[in-house]
Amino acid sequence: MIRAQIVGATGYGGLGIIELLLRHPEIQIVDLLAKTDVGKPVSDFFPHLRGFCDQMVEDASPERIGAGCDLVIFATPDRVGMQYAAQALARGARVVDYSGDFRFESAERYREYAMRHPSVGGKPHLSPELLSRNVYGIPELFRERIRDARLVGNPGCFAVAMILSLAPAVKSGLIDPRSIIVDGKTGISGGGKKPSATFHFPDRDGNVTPYRIANHQHAIETKMALADVGGQAIGLTFVPHLVPISRGILTTCYATLRQDVGAQDVYDLYREFYAGEPFVRVFPPGVTPGIKTAIGTNLCDVSYAVDRENGRLVVTGAIDNLLKGQAGNALQNVNVMFGLPEMLGLERTPLYP
Amino acid sequence: MIRAQIVGATGYGGLGIIELLLRHPEIQIVDLLAKTDVGKPVSDFFPHLRGFCDQMVEDASPERIGAGCDLVIFATPDRVGMQYAAQALARGARVVDYSGDFRFESAERYREYAMRHPSVGGKPHLSPELLSRNVYGIPELFRERIRDARLVGNPGCFAVAMILSLAPAVKSGLIDPRSIIVDGKTGISGGGKKPSATFHFPDRDGNVTPYRIANHQHAIETKMALADVGGQAIGLTFVPHLVPISRGILTTCYATLRQDVGAQDVYDLYREFYAGEPFVRVFPPGVTPGIKTAIGTNLCDVSYAVDRENGRLVVTGAIDNLLKGQAGNALQNVNVMFGLPEMLGLERTPLYP
Amino acid sequence: MIRAQIVGATGYGGLGIIELLLRHPEIQIVDLLAKTDVGKPVSDFFPHLRGFCDQMVEDASPERIGAGCDLVIFATPDRVGMQYAAQALARGARVVDYSGDFRFESAERYREYAMRHPSVGGKPHLSPELLSRNVYGIPELFRERIRDARLVGNPGCFAVAMILSLAPAVKSGLIDPRSIIVDGKTGISGGGKKPSATFHFPDRDGNVTPYRIANHQHAIETKMALADVGGQAIGLTFVPHLVPISRGILTTCYATLRQDVGAQDVYDLYREFYAGEPFVRVFPPGVTPGIKTAIGTNLCDVSYAVDRENGRLVVTGAIDNLLKGQAGNALQNVNVMFGLPEMLGLERTPLYP
Amino acid sequence: MIRAQIVGATGYGGLGIIELLLRHPEIQIVDLLAKTDVGKPVSDFFPHLRGFCDQMVEDASPERIGAGCDLVIFATPDRVGMQYAAQALARGARVVDYSGDFRFESAERYREYAMRHPSVGGKPHLSPELLSRNVYGIPELFRERIRDARLVGNPGCFAVAMILSLAPAVKSGLIDPRSIIVDGKTGISGGGKKPSATFHFPDRDGNVTPYRIANHQHAIETKMALADVGGQAIGLTFVPHLVPISRGILTTCYATLRQDVGAQDVYDLYREFYAGEPFVRVFPPGVTPGIKTAIGTNLCDVSYAVDRENGRLVVTGAIDNLLKGQAGNALQNVNVMFGLPEMLGLERTPLYP
Repeated sequence: MIRAQIVGATGYGGLGIIELLLRHPEIQIVDLLAKTDVGKPVSDFFPHLRGFCDQMVEDASPERIGAGCDLVIFATPDRVGMQYAAQALARGARVVDYSGDFRFESAERYREYAMRHPSVGGKPHLSPELLSRNVYGIPELFRERIRDARLVGNPGCFAVAMILSLAPAVKSGLIDPRSIIVDGKTGISGGGKKPSATFHFPDRDGNVTPYRIANHQHAIETKMALADVGGQAIGLTFVPHLVPISRGILTTCYATLRQDVGAQDVYDLYREFYAGEPFVRVFPPGVTPGIKTAIGTNLCDVSYAVDRENGRLVVTGAIDNLLKGQAGNALQNVNVMFGLPEMLGLERTPLYP
Repeated sequence: MIRAQIVGATGYGGLGIIELLLRHPEIQIVDLLAKTDVGKPVSDFFPHLRGFCDQMVEDASPERIGAGCDLVIFATPDRVGMQYAAQALARGARVVDYSGDFRFESAERYREYAMRHPSVGGKPHLSPELLSRNVYGIPELFRERIRDARLVGNPGCFAVAMILSLAPAVKSGLIDPRSIIVDGKTGISGGGKKPSATFHFPDRDGNVTPYRIANHQHAIETKMALADVGGQAIGLTFVPHLVPISRGILTTCYATLRQDVGAQDVYDLYREFYAGEPFVRVFPPGVTPGIKTAIGTNLCDVSYAVDRENGRLVVTGAIDNLLKGQAGNALQNVNVMFGLPEMLGLERTPLYP
Repeated sequence: MIRAQIVGATGYGGLGIIELLLRHPEIQIVDLLAKTDVGKPVSDFFPHLRGFCDQMVEDASPERIGAGCDLVIFATPDRVGMQYAAQALARGARVVDYSGDFRFESAERYREYAMRHPSVGGKPHLSPELLSRNVYGIPELFRERIRDARLVGNPGCFAVAMILSLAPAVKSGLIDPRSIIVDGKTGISGGGKKPSATFHFPDRDGNVTPYRIANHQHAIETKMALADVGGQAIGLTFVPHLVPISRGILTTCYATLRQDVGAQDVYDLYREFYAGEPFVRVFPPGVTPGIKTAIGTNLCDVSYAVDRENGRLVVTGAIDNLLKGQAGNALQNVNVMFGLPEMLGLERTPLYP
Repeated sequence: MIRAQIVGATGYGGLGIIELLLRHPEIQIVDLLAKTDVGKPVSDFFPHLRGFCDQMVEDASPERIGAGCDLVIFATPDRVGMQYAAQALARGARVVDYSGDFRFESAERYREYAMRHPSVGGKPHLSPELLSRNVYGIPELFRERIRDARLVGNPGCFAVAMILSLAPAVKSGLIDPRSIIVDGKTGISGGGKKPSATFHFPDRDGNVTPYRIANHQHAIETKMALADVGGQAIGLTFVPHLVPISRGILTTCYATLRQDVGAQDVYDLYREFYAGEPFVRVFPPGVTPGIKTAIGTNLCDVSYAVDRENGRLVVTGAIDNLLKGQAGNALQNVNVMFGLPEMLGLERTPLYP
């Protein structure tokens, strides 16, 4: 059994990986570490886990991190993983980090991200020496690199949806890579467990609100990953919106077509691109199922349409922001890193409605 | 492998059992029968199933029902199962019916229910000869009967929550059995997949509405089951309310205490009553987690408080109306009927939020 | 023009009275006082008010309170009004307080409330000498007292709905006054503007949660007011629930009938009781419209049913918790206190859906 | 008093104008005509109106339409108004039509719309001779024409938000008129009162779904109106999405800038463009309040940001789809047509939350 330590076990991100690992046949949770709710069973503050996981939360003290385990999941905010990843690696553990700490391959790229992220505020990376060892964790695109990696930066939730929605079109040269506009819609759990005015029920209920307009940090890694895939610089205007749902992300992507194609051509292209991928479903032309088909699963559901009059491609990508957008994708990375079947622990049938 | 035929496969009830059986190691779905969407893959109108179940829906013709299978699940409205159960049994299949058709042990009892149910309208039972063979399917209370049964009437969603909430208090004589009042809250999926003015989004969003006040058909079977458990006639005023959520039921139950007890006494009583039950969680005094802890699982979450000033017990029961309130409980019944481990196919970890 | 000073102008309660007074032809807002957001236009943090009210919020310093105005509305938490009401009265202003500070006619009664209210914690009243001068502000029941009062305690939101739902039945002796059970459902704005884990969108969305079971402070004033109306001691078990809506309260009230009556009899009784009342609508038998008909208005919508089998009356009362449950009722009190037409500023047509 | 006849009084569109006219001092409702719920008081099926408007609905027979009134509001689906407008005009009434029937100035333009609208299906206009007399009813842009008109085509809900969001940028030449992309989000009331699978609560709750991707009929009139304003052909890719709210539209508009400007420049441009307009609020740079500030009012709330890196303008427009997007804008048109103050009957203070 692979021994997993979860750092940041008391937030939604930690919760997500706990929920998944409880059904994983090859991985056991050895430690739940955090800085809040220490000394309580996790089911005290997440009562749905009662009887499923009543394990005690322990203090995320520096000496504990990476000790006695084969895998550390940093389900932590930005700038935690970068402090402890080196020691975890040195102790022989593999590391997956949820934050932006290990999504970038150079201190320079990190700086661009750090400037954009409101909670990072432009601060420099604390372990720049690791930035050549980390891998950006989207298995559908970078599976081979992840297989060999000991340090994976799990992507941002919006980035997963954008990148998987656009990668086939970018790689094939179907669209002008400077013309991309993405309008994102996210459920409120994307903001985490901590209450704030932005996530107060009466303010969100009945409301739709754009935020960080053309200034969201996930645009940086999306441009980086798509440039990597397509071999060309990417121009991206990304505007996220809060919508009054708990879980789920929909990214509606717009780009200028370089060729005169129809929806069936796009279908063929996408289907081939994602052939054999267990977690990407490409829907046939005319079927745009919305966010809810993906909720509760590790799937990314992709659909698209062609606006022939204006020469534009529209692609929508739907994910569960806490699964394919976070813990599910992290577990998929872990499965790849440890040479396990990629779907292990991720075979949930979705429930509807 | 047990071969299961689902009749009424295109509604939420049929969908629920499809979703569960996809992960059941001992049961395979052989037929999806229905009167609507015949000839389409089920994933055409339930797109979340795409890739999980793309099986074709076939016509629920009389000759098909019960043929070539070991189990028929009637996920049908009232008065369908009663027409075809006899032939299914005669062909050697075991039968579970979701409706009120086989919840009552006599034509007389059925009549009372039939008068109350708006869609039955007082019509007589069509197979009264079967009414001595059926068993009311709440495994926690009637497990032995279910084990020997070939025909199980799966209970009403509200009834499951009410009965499990009150059974320990009724059986132990803790409460006056004539004093029971239940205020129910249900998610809108309880009304099924068919659109109507009552379930129109703009009418339900932001709204809470009582309906069938002191006149809901689930009260009949609840009184019957609790009388069976407690050996005394039950008086029950039940008022259901529609609340703007998709899934879930909460029943808040009020009754006059016959003894001066505290919350800890109730805890001890309930804990002992449900000791070993895999699908009932009794929460400790002071913890009332709401509906959401039970969503996505086959659990019934029970909590309670004592109003000493007024000598009343308050018990709340939370279930997922489509799982413990319908398909999940049905599968639990099936597992009992076929001598399988009761949790098989029902071990889902709940996701939150 | 009556000059109104609003203390606590930056919460939902203060906002509610601002919204109403903007359309009141006889009252002008002179001061918006608060301890938060001081120095900002109110439309900075309530952007919907932009262009309607851009008045500056000023510091609620002790010397300002009650100065230069004819009316002080304390839209403040418990234990603020009791510190400043005496000086406001001394300066000639009339006072309406939203909290529990002036709902009780004696320090002893206040103590019972104070023990129950989690944020009061049993502390004694700070101005007990005022407790003979205050009036409990439900105009439908205590209009004459309010007319003569200079100090009105505006009732709790749940209390308004419970009291108006039950007053006719209690006064007429129709029900056993010791048998009352109320199951309340409230929108989340009832918890105020301050974010907390309880009101975090992902925790409330899709959820229904009971709280302060048989222990909510509004039960105290409800028993007091109904005892006043009926001349008999009241027994009341009250269980409130959070439901995922922004605005609105529904109270479902259960009580044992002392007479054999039908729904039409109850209709006649209620209609007569509330004849001429501009803000109580009694719906005919069989019509139970839910919460949403009352939203955006100062109405209390009352409906009912008789459970003849169990000899019980069921009455439901629906209000907008921020209007008839708070600011609207406060303005109704103000209109009565100043001899103005009771509907002034409160004639909003409801919008639907 | 102006005598108004409402045709199609039993849908959300008819309801919206009823709600407004109840508070209009110069207009009285003389007839509520419809083809459903005939012979019932409108408050029977819209119970929130009880006591506000209990007027009987009468049959919308051809001979009634336009008789005995000064104003006919066709709150009807497409292709009703075009059958009866001529007779209403001939009888001396002014006409406002909610549908696409009178939004286009030629049969040719109508044809393009008719091809796109799923419920019109390409059928030809039935009164093409009227298509030179009608005016497109956005008062902020076409006030003078409306003042002289007897026949006004009220715009589509999405079109109002798009047009008001983009008009200043188009007219000033700030943006490339061929580069426009609009991502729309609408509340479910936009689909009307009639239940359907698309608007079934369990399907919409927790969901966000794009529809008629780059194929929505409101794009036609938006291009027409913006071309009229800007004097240049418009290219527009418009993708609407259903979001789980009852009321409200947000349009997020993207376009390529022709000049290097900052947010303050855009603010100045927009503020000047809409100076004196009672129903357009231009928010200062950095303030993007979301949909909810506009709900319950006739306002269009506009905000914007500049994506300098990509040379794009982002403008968001928020409206209440049933007010500024339908009945409110219709009443504004009526006020202009009859020479009344434009805000009459539309001065509602918004309520929050």
